[in-house]
Amino acid sequence: MEYRIEKDTMGEVKVPADKYWGAQTERSRNNFKIGAAASMPKEIIYGFAYLKKAAAYTNCDLGALSTTKRDAIAQVCDEILAGKLDDQFPLVIWQTGSGTQSNMNVNEVIANRAQVLAGFKIGEGEPVLKANDDVNKSQSSNDTFPTAMHIACYKMVSETTIPHLEKLRDTLEIKSKAFKNVVKIGRTHLMDATPLTLGQELSGYVAQLNHGLKALKNTLPHLAELALGGTAVGTGLNAPKGYDTKVADYISQFTGYTFITAPNKFEALAAHDAIVESHGALKQLAVALTKIANDIRMMASGPRSGIGEIFIPENEPGSSIMPGKVNPTQCEALTMVCAQVMGNDVSITIGGMQGHYELNVFKPMIAANFLQSARLLGEACESFNEHCATGIEPNRKRIKELVDNSLMLVTALNTKIGYYKAAEIAQTAHRNGTTLKEEAVRLGYVTAEDFDNWVKPEDMV
Amino acid sequence: MEYRIEKDTMGEVKVPADKYWGAQTERSRNNFKIGAAASMPKEIIYGFAYLKKAAAYTNCDLGALSTTKRDAIAQVCDEILAGKLDDQFPLVIWQTGSGTQSNMNVNEVIANRAQVLAGFKIGEGEPVLKANDDVNKSQSSNDTFPTAMHIACYKMVSETTIPHLEKLRDTLEIKSKAFKNVVKIGRTHLMDATPLTLGQELSGYVAQLNHGLKALKNTLPHLAELALGGTAVGTGLNAPKGYDTKVADYISQFTGYTFITAPNKFEALAAHDAIVESHGALKQLAVALTKIANDIRMMASGPRSGIGEIFIPENEPGSSIMPGKVNPTQCEALTMVCAQVMGNDVSITIGGMQGHYELNVFKPMIAANFLQSARLLGEACESFNEHCATGIEPNRKRIKELVDNSLMLVTALNTKIGYYKAAEIAQTAHRNGTTLKEEAVRLGYVTAEDFDNWVKPEDMV
Amino acid sequence: MEYRIEKDTMGEVKVPADKYWGAQTERSRNNFKIGAAASMPKEIIYGFAYLKKAAAYTNCDLGALSTTKRDAIAQVCDEILAGKLDDQFPLVIWQTGSGTQSNMNVNEVIANRAQVLAGFKIGEGEPVLKANDDVNKSQSSNDTFPTAMHIACYKMVSETTIPHLEKLRDTLEIKSKAFKNVVKIGRTHLMDATPLTLGQELSGYVAQLNHGLKALKNTLPHLAELALGGTAVGTGLNAPKGYDTKVADYISQFTGYTFITAPNKFEALAAHDAIVESHGALKQLAVALTKIANDIRMMASGPRSGIGEIFIPENEPGSSIMPGKVNPTQCEALTMVCAQVMGNDVSITIGGMQGHYELNVFKPMIAANFLQSARLLGEACESFNEHCATGIEPNRKRIKELVDNSLMLVTALNTKIGYYKAAEIAQTAHRNGTTLKEEAVRLGYVTAEDFDNWVKPEDMV
Amino acid sequence: MEYRIEKDTMGEVKVPADKYWGAQTERSRNNFKIGAAASMPKEIIYGFAYLKKAAAYTNCDLGALSTTKRDAIAQVCDEILAGKLDDQFPLVIWQTGSGTQSNMNVNEVIANRAQVLAGFKIGEGEPVLKANDDVNKSQSSNDTFPTAMHIACYKMVSETTIPHLEKLRDTLEIKSKAFKNVVKIGRTHLMDATPLTLGQELSGYVAQLNHGLKALKNTLPHLAELALGGTAVGTGLNAPKGYDTKVADYISQFTGYTFITAPNKFEALAAHDAIVESHGALKQLAVALTKIANDIRMMASGPRSGIGEIFIPENEPGSSIMPGKVNPTQCEALTMVCAQVMGNDVSITIGGMQGHYELNVFKPMIAANFLQSARLLGEACESFNEHCATGIEPNRKRIKELVDNSLMLVTALNTKIGYYKAAEIAQTAHRNGTTLKEEAVRLGYVTAEDFDNWVKPEDMV
Repeated sequence: MEYRIEKDTMGEVKVPADKYWGAQTERSRNNFKIGAAASMPKEIIYGFAYLKKAAAYTNCDLGALSTTKRDAIAQVCDEILAGKLDDQFPLVIWQTGSGTQSNMNVNEVIANRAQVLAGFKIGEGEPVLKANDDVNKSQSSNDTFPTAMHIACYKMVSETTIPHLEKLRDTLEIKSKAFKNVVKIGRTHLMDATPLTLGQELSGYVAQLNHGLKALKNTLPHLAELALGGTAVGTGLNAPKGYDTKVADYISQFTGYTFITAPNKFEALAAHDAIVESHGALKQLAVALTKIANDIRMMASGPRSGIGEIFIPENEPGSSIMPGKVNPTQCEALTMVCAQVMGNDVSITIGGMQGHYELNVFKPMIAANFLQSARLLGEACESFNEHCATGIEPNRKRIKELVDNSLMLVTALNTKIGYYKAAEIAQTAHRNGTTLKEEAVRLGYVTAEDFDNWVKPEDMV
Repeated sequence: MEYRIEKDTMGEVKVPADKYWGAQTERSRNNFKIGAAASMPKEIIYGFAYLKKAAAYTNCDLGALSTTKRDAIAQVCDEILAGKLDDQFPLVIWQTGSGTQSNMNVNEVIANRAQVLAGFKIGEGEPVLKANDDVNKSQSSNDTFPTAMHIACYKMVSETTIPHLEKLRDTLEIKSKAFKNVVKIGRTHLMDATPLTLGQELSGYVAQLNHGLKALKNTLPHLAELALGGTAVGTGLNAPKGYDTKVADYISQFTGYTFITAPNKFEALAAHDAIVESHGALKQLAVALTKIANDIRMMASGPRSGIGEIFIPENEPGSSIMPGKVNPTQCEALTMVCAQVMGNDVSITIGGMQGHYELNVFKPMIAANFLQSARLLGEACESFNEHCATGIEPNRKRIKELVDNSLMLVTALNTKIGYYKAAEIAQTAHRNGTTLKEEAVRLGYVTAEDFDNWVKPEDMV
Repeated sequence: MEYRIEKDTMGEVKVPADKYWGAQTERSRNNFKIGAAASMPKEIIYGFAYLKKAAAYTNCDLGALSTTKRDAIAQVCDEILAGKLDDQFPLVIWQTGSGTQSNMNVNEVIANRAQVLAGFKIGEGEPVLKANDDVNKSQSSNDTFPTAMHIACYKMVSETTIPHLEKLRDTLEIKSKAFKNVVKIGRTHLMDATPLTLGQELSGYVAQLNHGLKALKNTLPHLAELALGGTAVGTGLNAPKGYDTKVADYISQFTGYTFITAPNKFEALAAHDAIVESHGALKQLAVALTKIANDIRMMASGPRSGIGEIFIPENEPGSSIMPGKVNPTQCEALTMVCAQVMGNDVSITIGGMQGHYELNVFKPMIAANFLQSARLLGEACESFNEHCATGIEPNRKRIKELVDNSLMLVTALNTKIGYYKAAEIAQTAHRNGTTLKEEAVRLGYVTAEDFDNWVKPEDMV
Repeated sequence: MEYRIEKDTMGEVKVPADKYWGAQTERSRNNFKIGAAASMPKEIIYGFAYLKKAAAYTNCDLGALSTTKRDAIAQVCDEILAGKLDDQFPLVIWQTGSGTQSNMNVNEVIANRAQVLAGFKIGEGEPVLKANDDVNKSQSSNDTFPTAMHIACYKMVSETTIPHLEKLRDTLEIKSKAFKNVVKIGRTHLMDATPLTLGQELSGYVAQLNHGLKALKNTLPHLAELALGGTAVGTGLNAPKGYDTKVADYISQFTGYTFITAPNKFEALAAHDAIVESHGALKQLAVALTKIANDIRMMASGPRSGIGEIFIPENEPGSSIMPGKVNPTQCEALTMVCAQVMGNDVSITIGGMQGHYELNVFKPMIAANFLQSARLLGEACESFNEHCATGIEPNRKRIKELVDNSLMLVTALNTKIGYYKAAEIAQTAHRNGTTLKEEAVRLGYVTAEDFDNWVKPEDMV
């Protein structure tokens, strides 16, 4: 491979000749060979592209940067956002905890790419842009990285998590209404209980998702706060007056989402409670989705020796050895994702709690876990919705058979003959393998006619 | 010990003669010898007392219960709430996951105590109240236990967690203002950085607590939803029409907090996402408080060989072997509580995700963990506030010494001479053990006069 | 209440006149009102009693303490171990993270109680024992507290966790053998699969518990290492030569378990990896037990509309509203305990990782969580064993019905006619609601006779 | 793109013409668009390659497969292991929880690639190998996937985790010996305590790593148990007699590690306690490494306003805004990895506990988390070792200054003048800002000469 020489304040470094990155990126590549290369999420890089462009515009507006430089920066940022420079960001999550090296990666790529766009080779001629003095002007890694985190996480939640969850919620709501008269056995403690309708059962899932979505949306205002303008420690040293609000406005304009400058920059650098907060809501959704997916696979279990109350789509052969087997695979993918999210919540908690003084240095890990959770939850819900939820249908024959047999219909008699006599009827029928009606009449507590009038599953829902 | 015979639908049970509880409580006592006796939180019992009274009033209003019975129930509930019957609830957390046995414990105690208040011995005469048919009327364990959970958790958060956190937040805000001109070294990556004021540093903590409090309050509407009226599976079987909203009103009236009936009862029985949601906010606060307490103990470390920038109260001798040692013990208690809360969050997550069909059967465990977290967080903050935060004072001499020595003041020169030359000054001073000014002048980048004008810690905050 | 005046190095404190504890205990009581009083586990106090006695003997043997003092200390320790002084330890978990105050609580109680046993009032006459100079001789909180932790945890695991788990394992092994010929449907993905015997299914649980027990026992050597002798920071300052090994021998002798002195005292004070390690094994057992209890409750589900393959004991009425309902309550208690243990594991992880320099100051929290997990797991297994596992019986009729119906018996044909034709048979039977045999013959792939010879559930296990 | 038509038991599927995979792989690709493509860890694919080859050899030895087919299978497996077919495995972690689709992916690729190696086009001519009947012979996804998991995890632990941890342990041991006479201040509660040597401090880290490595190695026998031979539900249906032990022998031979057939196949399919167990040890190591890395960065903090007792290598510029700043970046990468591992432990716990009946369907998620943890821990330790640990050097001047100033040296006087007088000396010196010696003499408790003889830091370690 061919190399060129780049320099930073520590000296010279050999860099692959065909790459735009510079000395600090290369140092990080060499010093942090941990896990797969280029694991730093692309969404973070794009977050940086938004904010570098916004910073350039703001610096220019405030007289700190020429329009030429502003436009040079903006042009490369647009290329990054178009995905044209994806192979220029080779760094890993497991680098410095401030993400400084990824900030410098972006600074270096912008500076060197601008040089090329201006018709030079990298390193040739007077620099069009200096990585630290121009591209990073009025910024520090300490305020840019959390800003990139918030932009990336906010966008992922808004564009992937929420819409897919809402789609699944809508499907379940449609199903809930469609099955509102399908009376089925209720189950508590996994044991037969009084009846309800399949529609009612599904309405509980809808309520869970609605509550979860509301909880998630409640966290967005905190996530919309941007650290940018705090620079090194939150004081805003070296940033011009008015910079922080203006830069947040530009970011809002460029991304199409309403971001605001964090009212307290010290919190925004030293803590990631906003991420902890939003991820808490993702975890709540994972809890809800686990419950829902578990119910669905239990109700669909069988086909002959399980519960078998609902049908779900048969999407693929389920076994390499058992012919004809079909499995609730979408439930499995979804619940695996949920388990991942629950573990990620602990990683984020542990990272979030360990900020010290003016900076939390678990930033890349926190961001990567959040983005993974938000993306996986959204995409798993989309998959689950499309390949499972939309195809849920009741097995009406089986449902009727199970509810009609149930001993818990006896509960309807509580208000007529009291809990104790009702219990005696149920216990006797259980012992004898008979029906409630037989035993109710035989014990002399109810007439056959009254029994038929009082014990109607469809009236018990 | 003397015993009397009690009966339930399964037969006879020997019960201690001097206790009000009945057969089902005693069965549970015998069947679940797991952990310390009577571990079911008292707050849950009190939650039951509120709801049993409210149910009696509602049943009476709706014509399902006589006023005599209503008043008999209410009278015992008031005794429970006054703490007079605390020794009548011997059951443990680790019982049936629906909490049925604690519901029956309350039902039995109310029935038997009412019998005694009516002048009978337990078991003598016509029963004043029947545990299942009267005290439990229009109820199931499945809707009462989650209702008791919500009442208990809501009250704990409102009366213990929030007020004590707000008090600590207020103290930190006062300190933040008091120290707003104390310029100190900033630290990022634990390394010297540009300066800020101690007041600014503390303002970050205030912002964290404010965000955490807001997050916690955002969860209260979900927690204010009550399951009561759903009865066995959420359909409200055996409850009179209008019961659910009315009973929520009575609970609001008796507790002084605004509760509402859950719009979806199926969710309210089968899931505990409301608890998951609120506890997520408690965990966020634990994350914030860990950060804060860690900073404080690091800044107070010493007295001779640590950072030593602040003084905190010396409350007790710190060592049984090292004379004169004083430790940041309040920070330690608080961070231990935070670690507990973070673990409890996982227990609640794991319990919360495992609802099946119409019921989640991890209720007592979930409730106990939530109540522990909410109480400990509140009380630890109170203790920390009183015995530590209110006494924080800056060690001005030490603070000045540390900031004046710092090499990171060089950052002020970035906008004058560029990042690279500034770095050279800092590195040279670091290598030579000299001051920035000496090297700046020697390298010829800045005059002594300019240096003094440009590098002023007090202008960098 | 009456008080007396006690003193420590910080001055005078009013202490309840009828209590043996002194100034430092009282300071802690006042400074740490967090959670229920006296929450410091008694097992820790007893651990201290063993070690204080052992230290006294060792100090005496090494010429650092008179036999009179040794015997005075030992006498009170024996009283503590007999449970006679349980009300003398009022401190909470949430105190200083080194547990210094509980160490001093023990030191003070021993000194003052010895004074009374010598015929004086507390504070009267020449002190028989000085809390710091005699009772705490050759010790620091920093080495005594972790020693008490290890003694307490080791005993709890050995006396409660392991024996009860082994009993449950034995029961499941007996059941596994008893049911070794009960052929039942297998289930994978909750869906019907090829058959196995109920005995085989249970043998998997036995294997899980055996592996878990082995994992737990693997951790005991680390837990058997005692910090005592390290004193303040691990160097053993102020402890006589040979003290550490001798004191471990005395502790072994007094407790009946083989403890050794930690080869590296710095690790033993600054880290609690031994507790992290042992609790990891408890967590693994919680994982195993959750799987087992879930299976059992699913197999026992019904009685009419569930799986219903096994019967479990009916221990108590299961519902306050549904007469005759019986629930898998022991499974519920056990799985709640498991969820608690899994959360405790995270608390211990978070506490364990935060040791700094020479000391970890999350000691009481770590110890309390470990002891809770070890006790609850043991006692829940005992309860589950006695009230559930021993009573498991197959529902042979139901089991046969479900296995005979299963479409997955078709797998036996793979090696005869290939996977694809076998799949066609199963799919056709599934679609038509017919039997495998009908379709196998109709499709012309197998004769009726061959089918009967080849597809025998009892040959497939 | 060009396509060809592939078939499975459900019908036809269009597959990219240039890929070896077949219908079931393509179905999974379409049905599970969750997260990045091809996220199933390559190590799992390689685990499959080992076991498919071993199965072919075993089947051949036992007369169930021709040598021609055996060699055809083995040839493709060798290609897979050489990394030549890496682009043929496009599936994601978030598929069916049994990993069936990845098993079929491997089966399909082997069959189609063999066809091509035999000189045909895919789909042309008589099939050389059938995916289900030949490549998957005597196997099920249910026993192959956990076998691939164990092979992959065992290899990762043995080749990446353990060697790099041992290297770091060795470095710390070398440093511990090198600095065995560097007397420094001890710190407990972050506060000044009695002295120890830097070598002693580091020896605690060595002990932690040794204990963690031992704990990890203790788990390897469980991880060495292979499910293969259990087939669909653990009974070994359709596998020839003697297959399981023989196939384990072949796997041992091919991998170079000693694997054995799982004594209980039911456990091996339905539970992943072996993974839970091994990952518990990884988590313990993460706890230890967090402690170690935190200490190192605190001791290295400064350069002017921190603790500054040690130097660590300066690897890269640390700030994009603060010139000359150098940060403990290797500590940051390592502690981020540790936080990830701690969260992964919870994901694995949650997945591991949810096996149902004969199968755990969280397999891919569990495997992916384990492999990530094992790899990251190993590689982060290697990076930390090379770029940080090997360069640790004491700042002797600073160390001496801090220890000489310390008030805790007074502890040496305990055995001479008692704890109370010693405390008075320390408190007075603290109050007056004087030295211990000044106050000791002034208070008349010790002569200057005795003080100098008794209070020697170098004698206190």
